[in-house]
Amino acid sequence: MRAQGGSERLLERVLVIGAGLIGTSIGLALRQRAIEVYLQDTAPGRLALARELGAGVPPRDGDVFDVVVLAIPPSAIAVELQRAQRLGLGRTYTDVASAKAEPEREAELLGVDMRRYVGGHPVAGRERSGPAAAHADLFVGRPWVITSTPNAADDAVADVRSLAEACGAVPVEMSADVHDAALATVSHLPHLVAALLAAQLTGSTDATVGLGGTGLQDTTRVAAGDPDLWTQILAANAGHLAAVLGQFADDVQRTLVDLRRLADGDRSAAAALTGTLRQGVAGRARVPVKRGQPAAGFVTVPIVVRDAPGELAAVLRALGDAGINVEDVRVEHEPGRARGVVELDVREEAASALIACMNAAGWEVYT
Amino acid sequence: MRAQGGSERLLERVLVIGAGLIGTSIGLALRQRAIEVYLQDTAPGRLALARELGAGVPPRDGDVFDVVVLAIPPSAIAVELQRAQRLGLGRTYTDVASAKAEPEREAELLGVDMRRYVGGHPVAGRERSGPAAAHADLFVGRPWVITSTPNAADDAVADVRSLAEACGAVPVEMSADVHDAALATVSHLPHLVAALLAAQLTGSTDATVGLGGTGLQDTTRVAAGDPDLWTQILAANAGHLAAVLGQFADDVQRTLVDLRRLADGDRSAAAALTGTLRQGVAGRARVPVKRGQPAAGFVTVPIVVRDAPGELAAVLRALGDAGINVEDVRVEHEPGRARGVVELDVREEAASALIACMNAAGWEVYT
Repeated sequence: MRAQGGSERLLERVLVIGAGLIGTSIGLALRQRAIEVYLQDTAPGRLALARELGAGVPPRDGDVFDVVVLAIPPSAIAVELQRAQRLGLGRTYTDVASAKAEPEREAELLGVDMRRYVGGHPVAGRERSGPAAAHADLFVGRPWVITSTPNAADDAVADVRSLAEACGAVPVEMSADVHDAALATVSHLPHLVAALLAAQLTGSTDATVGLGGTGLQDTTRVAAGDPDLWTQILAANAGHLAAVLGQFADDVQRTLVDLRRLADGDRSAAAALTGTLRQGVAGRARVPVKRGQPAAGFVTVPIVVRDAPGELAAVLRALGDAGINVEDVRVEHEPGRARGVVELDVREEAASALIACMNAAGWEVYT
Repeated sequence: MRAQGGSERLLERVLVIGAGLIGTSIGLALRQRAIEVYLQDTAPGRLALARELGAGVPPRDGDVFDVVVLAIPPSAIAVELQRAQRLGLGRTYTDVASAKAEPEREAELLGVDMRRYVGGHPVAGRERSGPAAAHADLFVGRPWVITSTPNAADDAVADVRSLAEACGAVPVEMSADVHDAALATVSHLPHLVAALLAAQLTGSTDATVGLGGTGLQDTTRVAAGDPDLWTQILAANAGHLAAVLGQFADDVQRTLVDLRRLADGDRSAAAALTGTLRQGVAGRARVPVKRGQPAAGFVTVPIVVRDAPGELAAVLRALGDAGINVEDVRVEHEPGRARGVVELDVREEAASALIACMNAAGWEVYT
């Protein structure tokens, strides 16, 4: 991993190829920074919607861009890079694929100019896809991995770093191989396991599925992702993913043996099962978790209020009068008490003003 | 599954043994219906907190209760049932364990009066445990499985049904064995898989774990559950769980073979991987999912507002003036547009008043 430098490059004109969730979100984020964004996509409907949302305008023949961003499926990247470089579309080229070694290898094989291509992966997403799900804030505070090769020009790396920062993300440099091994563990394995878990429900009765609660909802949520896109992602990282899935499979088999012993009345297997669950607790404790769902760059300020009509409105009215915009509001009721907790998400720089405003109006603030 | 009858029984006095998440939540729910709740626990601190929250008061010697609820770990149920029946504490006895066949078998072996014991399982929970996490609304709209044996007296079944209904839950009758098979699929397998998945992170670097996003958060959330309690739950349902874990393990092995073929450059394995992911999508589509997190018994009403300070407050002020209490508020921003969507959760019976109030004030309501 390379130390993060401060070599900011001015980006004025960016071409985004691919108007899906990521491409459209990049366009929206850059437009908020008043960077000119040009948008292309082979699907006219998707492109029209992304443009309608304000993510970019059509490029004109002969335009040359500071950065060309390929927000397209992994298997299409090398060929599209080659095409874009032949047309001389840009100064620097990058992509957003969540597997990095394979596109890099394919680009080298095709003779792409590796001085001007620097791979990227904004580590952010939603289970929904397409431009309608795009958010200008999608990348705020999230890692944006930059996987430059030794051949990459320093100013090309600086361009991609500036792109990430303009989107509000945190640039992190590492090799494609280190990136792919990490993503296999924290993204690709969870996706595949969620799919395999959800698949167990296809043969269940309605009565069975009706007993599912929030645990089932959470553990299977990502399984709704587009199978064709995810096949490409997982296939492009098949080596690393097979390694971590192999370890997972071993752990499953071991646990299966423990459970069969328990089912046969051998209570001595309980300790092994507890050990497995403790490992799960230890692993879970390492997951970066935000309380509630405040976007990065925002903080949550909890306010205690009476649980009465108008009380929440009074809080928000006081904030509106003070010109403080609240990004999100969550309400937690405490049963058996006449008070509730209102969690307000505000931009970090607005937090102290919010607290002062609430204190002045007599509400209890817990920070 | 038995058809649901309307034989409501009046409950006046209930004893809850066990002041954890479920026991305390039952106490809070019953108190809202003005039912007398008496509370016991062997842990003084837990009991004191549950009482402080208003979940019940100490029983007096000689009290006899309409229903005695055992909200204790599965392995303790049979012995506690025997003790409670010998003391003649109640008319009807039930429990809340999430595995039903084993406590039932153990109770029969101990000579418990099975006419007066009817197993129950309120299918609701949180990843947090203990009385501090308790909610009076925890069971609202959730299934409450009732697993009566052929020996159970009709009026005992009616008592447990009334208990479930008083907590706002939906009683569902099925055999202990059908219940346990269903829970293995929709609860116990997801928990175990989440633990095995989270366990893969224990050997990861901080840089790797730092790349985890919402997918990793969701798929591992339940892995934080108490290992000792979950060992009891899983062990009590080891037979059914081993069966579904065996099927899951087979699917994992098959997918591992596909991935290894892909890693070796055999692209023909991609179709099998896509098929697996499609099964995941199909399974996920069967999961009962609430949009956002409105509690059951509540509806979500989306209102379109300008994204400006004070706008949200104005909506809530209008509702406060009309005396409409909003249970929860969620804000969705649409980037690139000057408008946002505010989702208001209100009790079903208040929805039409809310819509009328919003329309009168000129806001767009989408129902």
